[in-house]
Amino acid sequence: MSDFVTWTTWAWAAGMVGLVTAGFVYRYVKSQPAGSDLMIDISTQIHDGAMTFLKREYSVLAVFVLIVTALLAWATTGQTAIAYVTGALCSVLAGFFGMKSATRANVRTAAAANDEGQGKALRVAFFGGSVMGLSVAALGLIGIGGFYWIFGSGAIAAAEHVRFAQIISGFAMGASSIALFARVGGGIFTKAADVGADLVGKVEAGIPEDDPRNPASIADAVGDNVGDVAGMGADIFESYVGSIIATIAIGATVGMTTHTPSAVALPILTVMVGLLASLIGIGMMKVFEGTDPAAALRNVTFVAAVLFLGAMYFVVRGMDFQVITEGGRALPAIGPWVAILAGTLVGIAIGLVTEYYTAAAPIRRIAEASQTGAGTNLITGLAVGMESTAIPVLLICLAIWLSFQFAGLYGIGIAAVGMLATVGVTMSVDAYGPIADNAGGISEMSGLGEETRAITDSLDAIGNTTAAQGKGFAIGSAALTALALFSAYAAAVGLTDTGINLINPKVVIGLFLGGMLPFFVAALTMTAVGRAAQGMVDEVRRQFREIPGIMEGTVKPDSARCIDISTKAALREMILPGLTAVLAPVIVGYFMGVEALGGMLAGAMVTGVLLALFMANSGGAWDNAKKYIEAGAYGGKGSEPHMAAVIGDTVGDPFKDTSGPSLNILIKLIAIVSVVFAGLIVKFSPMISGWIGLG
Amino acid sequence: MSDFVTWTTWAWAAGMVGLVTAGFVYRYVKSQPAGSDLMIDISTQIHDGAMTFLKREYSVLAVFVLIVTALLAWATTGQTAIAYVTGALCSVLAGFFGMKSATRANVRTAAAANDEGQGKALRVAFFGGSVMGLSVAALGLIGIGGFYWIFGSGAIAAAEHVRFAQIISGFAMGASSIALFARVGGGIFTKAADVGADLVGKVEAGIPEDDPRNPASIADAVGDNVGDVAGMGADIFESYVGSIIATIAIGATVGMTTHTPSAVALPILTVMVGLLASLIGIGMMKVFEGTDPAAALRNVTFVAAVLFLGAMYFVVRGMDFQVITEGGRALPAIGPWVAILAGTLVGIAIGLVTEYYTAAAPIRRIAEASQTGAGTNLITGLAVGMESTAIPVLLICLAIWLSFQFAGLYGIGIAAVGMLATVGVTMSVDAYGPIADNAGGISEMSGLGEETRAITDSLDAIGNTTAAQGKGFAIGSAALTALALFSAYAAAVGLTDTGINLINPKVVIGLFLGGMLPFFVAALTMTAVGRAAQGMVDEVRRQFREIPGIMEGTVKPDSARCIDISTKAALREMILPGLTAVLAPVIVGYFMGVEALGGMLAGAMVTGVLLALFMANSGGAWDNAKKYIEAGAYGGKGSEPHMAAVIGDTVGDPFKDTSGPSLNILIKLIAIVSVVFAGLIVKFSPMISGWIGLG
Repeated sequence: MSDFVTWTTWAWAAGMVGLVTAGFVYRYVKSQPAGSDLMIDISTQIHDGAMTFLKREYSVLAVFVLIVTALLAWATTGQTAIAYVTGALCSVLAGFFGMKSATRANVRTAAAANDEGQGKALRVAFFGGSVMGLSVAALGLIGIGGFYWIFGSGAIAAAEHVRFAQIISGFAMGASSIALFARVGGGIFTKAADVGADLVGKVEAGIPEDDPRNPASIADAVGDNVGDVAGMGADIFESYVGSIIATIAIGATVGMTTHTPSAVALPILTVMVGLLASLIGIGMMKVFEGTDPAAALRNVTFVAAVLFLGAMYFVVRGMDFQVITEGGRALPAIGPWVAILAGTLVGIAIGLVTEYYTAAAPIRRIAEASQTGAGTNLITGLAVGMESTAIPVLLICLAIWLSFQFAGLYGIGIAAVGMLATVGVTMSVDAYGPIADNAGGISEMSGLGEETRAITDSLDAIGNTTAAQGKGFAIGSAALTALALFSAYAAAVGLTDTGINLINPKVVIGLFLGGMLPFFVAALTMTAVGRAAQGMVDEVRRQFREIPGIMEGTVKPDSARCIDISTKAALREMILPGLTAVLAPVIVGYFMGVEALGGMLAGAMVTGVLLALFMANSGGAWDNAKKYIEAGAYGGKGSEPHMAAVIGDTVGDPFKDTSGPSLNILIKLIAIVSVVFAGLIVKFSPMISGWIGLG
Repeated sequence: MSDFVTWTTWAWAAGMVGLVTAGFVYRYVKSQPAGSDLMIDISTQIHDGAMTFLKREYSVLAVFVLIVTALLAWATTGQTAIAYVTGALCSVLAGFFGMKSATRANVRTAAAANDEGQGKALRVAFFGGSVMGLSVAALGLIGIGGFYWIFGSGAIAAAEHVRFAQIISGFAMGASSIALFARVGGGIFTKAADVGADLVGKVEAGIPEDDPRNPASIADAVGDNVGDVAGMGADIFESYVGSIIATIAIGATVGMTTHTPSAVALPILTVMVGLLASLIGIGMMKVFEGTDPAAALRNVTFVAAVLFLGAMYFVVRGMDFQVITEGGRALPAIGPWVAILAGTLVGIAIGLVTEYYTAAAPIRRIAEASQTGAGTNLITGLAVGMESTAIPVLLICLAIWLSFQFAGLYGIGIAAVGMLATVGVTMSVDAYGPIADNAGGISEMSGLGEETRAITDSLDAIGNTTAAQGKGFAIGSAALTALALFSAYAAAVGLTDTGINLINPKVVIGLFLGGMLPFFVAALTMTAVGRAAQGMVDEVRRQFREIPGIMEGTVKPDSARCIDISTKAALREMILPGLTAVLAPVIVGYFMGVEALGGMLAGAMVTGVLLALFMANSGGAWDNAKKYIEAGAYGGKGSEPHMAAVIGDTVGDPFKDTSGPSLNILIKLIAIVSVVFAGLIVKFSPMISGWIGLG
């Protein structure tokens, strides 16, 4: 056992360092001036609205988590149940810290833009976001590292490692449960508010976006935080812990490596190194903040990635363990590092491809098509979205192939971990976006000057780019994580030897059922947004009609009511897609057996990734095509092409912010549920399927 | 060997009976009065336009087919190459006969509606369509039956049957090649003409649909025949022969049944019985034509299905052979009949589900959403389309499960054959639709009275229902056929014993690549329609501008030019999707091996079926939601909701008539290419993949 392995005992401590740093960063952000009374008032409303949503969500969540915990304690082990609660708690805390910080940083970014200029505004927004990034990385490490310290590190016997992997899978399932609520519920919240605000405010009443007279403006700003900070954070947290745990599970499989403890330790070491690299990268913002903001954000990520990859080279070399193929061939000892490299590079590349499809020639194609009306705008946008799936899928295949060639099935897991290890900094860049967006909204609502608006607008525009990259990254990492979890599932049910045979019609049935799930969940979530938005439209119309003085600006609209409507709708509409995701694998597993369930996971993974890419990229492209026209192309704002582009954007909203992202969660959640219930399914499914003749 | 098996020697003769009957039916249709001089002139233009398209298509096709034939003769066997040419020829002939008849029947339907009323009009339209239905069934039987007579029936040794299956797979590939041209090219032709005619005529010039002053009106009518008669016919012909040949290939696999000759003979017997049942069903139209037209069309199908299933029960019992599972268990001797029953019923059920999603509550949901604009119309339509995938997929899974339980892998093949056996009558009902549609257009263009229009409108409305069912049926049968071909592929490359292991990352890569193909091809075809429609728009605008007297009706527009534009665009835009479909399996097979190719076929099958269902049903639902509003709901024609619904319909057009149907072809074509090249891939892929380290 190399020295590196013993270091993993301190993983939880490394996590604590990250968390404490996040605390200091938060204190720094909060200590910044928050601007005028009006600004403080608006930001307090956003902050309170966000906290209201979180509290309501948590109270529903608490019931859900308690029920599942009880079920797990009864059906699996008490330790798995404890891990589940802990995983859920860590995800909740990460989301809570991130939201707290984001809703403090938004107004302070606006104030900094107003008082001190662009460099300072960038710093505040980025540091505000980095609380989320660091919390995600740190809490993942504290949780997994803590369990490792207690159950894993001391256990040399391979069997103990397998047991550790089983326990810790509960942690991943906890994270997944929260992600489901945060991503699906958050996605519905944010789009109900957005669509409601736009339809009545912009279209019917003719007042600008983010106008303080619009009762849904605050809800819209809350939605940005709920969806893009908490939702995205929970999604990435799920991938982060899911990939680590899947790799541990694969690594723990007896006989797959020359040294099981090293195989179990490597993913943990990888994220420790990633967190440290992220801390350095985030700190470098002070160096870069004076330069072009887009370059600064790119550079901090770049510094962290290079440091991470460099350090990992020595770590992997120093561990000196080899992965063994099924055929018994020993792969190169540096193999896992090549997999990590492949994961990291492919993660970046997918982000760039997403950016291309939502920024360059494709959006000009859509804008051009808008000249002949909404129909052609939509056809072109849909075609662009479908086309945009090709290169990311090829990249994912490349990552799979490279990591497998160099480190076997284990390589696929560690590649996913590599992609996610520097999440501290990548997630900081992600969370920067909604903060800058909110800062713009607050500037507008509180009537700050042209110059300030120009700064917040330019920061917001960069936020759109980073958001596009972040969405691509989220899908790519979800794909690799789901694949790693799929392998972990196969190992857990003992199929790695016998295989999952695609010629077996039960597997084909599983494949079809799994393939259908993303379409079904996408349909549910899109319908949900439509329904929730309708409720918001009715409420905004009612306020405009019944509350005198709103339009004159003499009476404040009832923003809390709008937040309440979005919150209720989000929590209500989440139930059906959520139940589908949790129950589908259990039902198929019990009634059709482990092989069919394997087919289902594979089917859902493939269509889930494709549909997520299609929806996210169509949506992003429509949004930016509209902005491109608004910037003056084809007649600019108010022209016929612009009207067409607005319709495209309306369709794109639930595509990119609700349904698409929900699919990331779906494919990971059904895989982790399958891993956790693997033992039970193996035990009972032959009996059940025997009864009904499906065996 | 039972007597039934010897009957199959006469399969080609049964086909001849069907073809001769089709000839008599055609003579009957042609002998009907064709109406006024104006009507004859219009229908001659449509007929000539259709023939122009076919001739141009055939000349491109001839080159393609010659090249592939030479390649096949060199790479496989001369017999396979001959089978390929024959398959292509049979499909071409079926399409040619069907188009000839349809473009004669349309004007005679209008004349019958004008002179003799609804019953006679129904008969002419249906008999006009039945030439297509009978030609598809008969030519399939003549081709396969002929090869069976020469190579198959006398050969008792199992090895000879395997060789026969290999040769005959060339026939299926020939059919697939034509289907690709007819469906993809036809789909682009029809929508370019349709969108072009609508955008300039209805929207810009404000003249009604099918107005004779619109230069694209004739091209639009030609397009209905090109897309819905020739395209649909080639699609179904491909499924028909593909499923028969796949089942022969599975049945020929040594050791899978107690009696190989019976297993090889059953699919041929099944379609013989199906053809005879169809002939009786079609003849029954004379009995039913006086009743409600929708009921009449339903009843002829019903009669044929019942006769078919009843007769097949005795055939299967009489053959007395058993399918053996891999485990060596003998399944019930009546098992294949249960599979046939499952296939037939599921085929009907999928059609009904499709009808539901494009006719009932879902379209009212879309119409209601149109009140808040095009954005919500589109979101709802997309959600409906995605939702509509669920039940058909469950039905397909049910068919797979039942047929496998009762007759093993062989059962999946024979279930597909069962679904398609009565194609003589189901395809007649399908082809009835565009004839009724054309009859309506001709009535409009030649100014027939209100009463006549009412009859053609009501026949056309029923045509929309049968078209919806036909589309669902086409996808369902494509799914089962692709699955049967997938099994045939596995048998051909010797993977039925070792399996295609989903845990193998190469298979996962194949699955992702395959899953991506339908998205890619859908994007290509949608973009193609956009581009081709733009060319049509420019031409129609030019004619309105440059030819004086068009709008006054004193000068005839240059319709031939519009047909030429659609034809050229269709042939040009078909190349890239076509090459993708043909080359993808060959490349993946050679470079990544037979298992990865298996994964690719499975991936394409799953996302292809889902995407095809989604696109076809969204498109149909948008179309009918628009018609629902036009019938008076939510303000009727010209209202804001109607404008929104028109935009939805525009998006739905390429969805349902180009991209969606192209996917049916894609999933079958890549499977049949894999089967034909199986031997070569097995031989060379280890070498190639060895060189580049992908092995």
